[in-house]
Amino acid sequence: MNCQKNLPPFPLWENAVRKVRRFSPVVHCITNYVTAGWCADALLAAGAAPIMADEPEEMDDITSIAGSLVLNIGTLRQTSLVSMRRAAETANRLNKPVLLDPVGAGASRLRTESALSLLNGFHPAVVRGNISEILALAGCTAESRGVDADPAALVHPDRMTESAEWAAQLARRWRCVVAVSGPVDIISDGRHTCAVGGGDPMMARITGCGCMLSALCGAFLAEETDPWNAVSACFAMMSLCGGYAAQSVRAAGGGTASFRIRLLDALSLFSPERLAGAAVQIL
Amino acid sequence: MNCQKNLPPFPLWENAVRKVRRFSPVVHCITNYVTAGWCADALLAAGAAPIMADEPEEMDDITSIAGSLVLNIGTLRQTSLVSMRRAAETANRLNKPVLLDPVGAGASRLRTESALSLLNGFHPAVVRGNISEILALAGCTAESRGVDADPAALVHPDRMTESAEWAAQLARRWRCVVAVSGPVDIISDGRHTCAVGGGDPMMARITGCGCMLSALCGAFLAEETDPWNAVSACFAMMSLCGGYAAQSVRAAGGGTASFRIRLLDALSLFSPERLAGAAVQIL
Amino acid sequence: MNCQKNLPPFPLWENAVRKVRRFSPVVHCITNYVTAGWCADALLAAGAAPIMADEPEEMDDITSIAGSLVLNIGTLRQTSLVSMRRAAETANRLNKPVLLDPVGAGASRLRTESALSLLNGFHPAVVRGNISEILALAGCTAESRGVDADPAALVHPDRMTESAEWAAQLARRWRCVVAVSGPVDIISDGRHTCAVGGGDPMMARITGCGCMLSALCGAFLAEETDPWNAVSACFAMMSLCGGYAAQSVRAAGGGTASFRIRLLDALSLFSPERLAGAAVQIL
Repeated sequence: MNCQKNLPPFPLWENAVRKVRRFSPVVHCITNYVTAGWCADALLAAGAAPIMADEPEEMDDITSIAGSLVLNIGTLRQTSLVSMRRAAETANRLNKPVLLDPVGAGASRLRTESALSLLNGFHPAVVRGNISEILALAGCTAESRGVDADPAALVHPDRMTESAEWAAQLARRWRCVVAVSGPVDIISDGRHTCAVGGGDPMMARITGCGCMLSALCGAFLAEETDPWNAVSACFAMMSLCGGYAAQSVRAAGGGTASFRIRLLDALSLFSPERLAGAAVQIL
Repeated sequence: MNCQKNLPPFPLWENAVRKVRRFSPVVHCITNYVTAGWCADALLAAGAAPIMADEPEEMDDITSIAGSLVLNIGTLRQTSLVSMRRAAETANRLNKPVLLDPVGAGASRLRTESALSLLNGFHPAVVRGNISEILALAGCTAESRGVDADPAALVHPDRMTESAEWAAQLARRWRCVVAVSGPVDIISDGRHTCAVGGGDPMMARITGCGCMLSALCGAFLAEETDPWNAVSACFAMMSLCGGYAAQSVRAAGGGTASFRIRLLDALSLFSPERLAGAAVQIL
Repeated sequence: MNCQKNLPPFPLWENAVRKVRRFSPVVHCITNYVTAGWCADALLAAGAAPIMADEPEEMDDITSIAGSLVLNIGTLRQTSLVSMRRAAETANRLNKPVLLDPVGAGASRLRTESALSLLNGFHPAVVRGNISEILALAGCTAESRGVDADPAALVHPDRMTESAEWAAQLARRWRCVVAVSGPVDIISDGRHTCAVGGGDPMMARITGCGCMLSALCGAFLAEETDPWNAVSACFAMMSLCGGYAAQSVRAAGGGTASFRIRLLDALSLFSPERLAGAAVQIL
């Protein structure tokens, strides 16, 4: 684990945001029907081009024209699992990055086992989930309460060093970037690890913040060579947008739906230079 | 039917709202893809924890960790019907409350028959629908016009006594709470019946108000021992939020989408003490 | 092709908007799960009654009670393709108008071939898509970049005469109205052709503007005898609403999600007399 207390590579991250806007990567999402529309809107807001498709027969064609593939196992079905495997095979063959979002892993054996089979079979560049989902994949018994993260979780501002070490070990074991969402996010590729603060508890009070973040990471992955930088830049952007949206909603006396609108607005209006103000700590 | 003109148990209902926030029950929804995202958002706004899942293989696991089960037959498919049966069996076995929302019953034989088989086979604690859906289940021929309630319906402010008697009879026949949405809502468990006014016609101009209400009732059912109180409290809250949101949208010159945002905002900001001002009549 | 530079039949189009509100046609949509909720909301905003259903077994019943049928192949699955065929057969038999939205045609063989089989087998009254989708159906090789239109497209303000001639030829070949969305929209039935300007680039930065437009066209088709007038009126309304919403969002410093809300608000508050100000050119 990289323990130098150095500055995050903000200029590189700013550039990552700009590249998504300039090149508008196609992101192939095989995802759940609860948040699919919000994921598409988040991608469009950031300048990317979403394509949601999950019929096995067209996976080859669709993944081939995409810059990256996002596998999200919310509302998982056996058919979409077949599609995920076909699409991931194509992505592997064409050397396109795959992101796995193990939504609800730990909540059912089907989810846990499906996520593990995708993780072990198709070399995702990134696994992004909340703490209980990542724990489930790591084989830790966690009391899984639906799709929401356990608030008394391993990842906590007071124990950043342990959290970073744990994430880095997982990243080395899985040979990918591990990105854990929570009050503080941890992103590690086994060598580089950072913690992203900021954000707002309101982000957990709308459905799909995690799904949107995964979709957005897919867009960044399509344009960046280094997945850790892609994911870290994306998390920092989301955290700033979430914090800003929550602040402005509270000032206006709004509730959770207004927060959703302002979060997406913030993504679409985001100034890359603002990244320099992100609450990121290199661990 | 309870015909005393007494006050609704508002303190108990206020407590119901607070318990959902405090205990954040997991609500397992097998629902349609049109409004699934809004249902999840409504549950989160009220403080509950949604889990949308409909693959047969994981029904046992998911229903087991949930506090209640909501079956919504909008965009019904044969596969999800299999899932509904498995999940309902699990819920029955574990003594967890089941709510049935017979979306579009009367619009197709598949919907009517599926709803009836769920009603007869799995002892739902609550059936919630609009008047034409409830009429279809009751075996009354109703000209079914899609999923929207017949405006010239049985439930009408001018004939509350007949409406209450009819709902109470159905509740006794089906041995569950019957909750009928309309310009005035009627909720009966065969012994207690109330009418909930307020709300606003704008609620029928966004998709999924009924679905959201069913999902929310699921959250209240998970925490209350008496289903009639759970459902009545939830209807009263929704009606107040709908009325308030419509008023504020009209004042701002907004349209139906702004109304949706303000309705969800109102749910997330709802003060339980406001229930005492609900337009509820014990019949 | 009709090349008279005459005025569009605005009074007739105004009446089309009013008829949708007055008669509230049921529109049966077999559509994708990404934008299904927004399509339902757009239909409700315009005064129509959406019914989303795609289980093969209930197609006969549902299409029978609808005024029109909208087939949208986004997130296409083999099962929904079966449903589309059954529903289209019923619609053809009962003489109800069918609209085909070939979402993503050109992006996969499955989509292109499915769209062509629906086009050739079931006499749609209207085919509505973006330029790359229409090109794919026309057999032109187009570099298909997901579901978004090629910006350097055939349909361009500087070459309206060629665009109109091309659309009119397709309309005659397919014996239906061809409606091509883009910076300028082209609508032709082979005899009458118009270009609809206005709108705003922001419309391409939210998901489902095209899907919503197709759904809305379905509502207009249900009430109008002439499909070209139905579609042209609907496009003109959408374009005005999009332009107005974008203007008001920019003035307020909002982003893409606010734009979505204001677009739907504008649809729900639309004054039919405003159509006379639409940027429509009869070609």
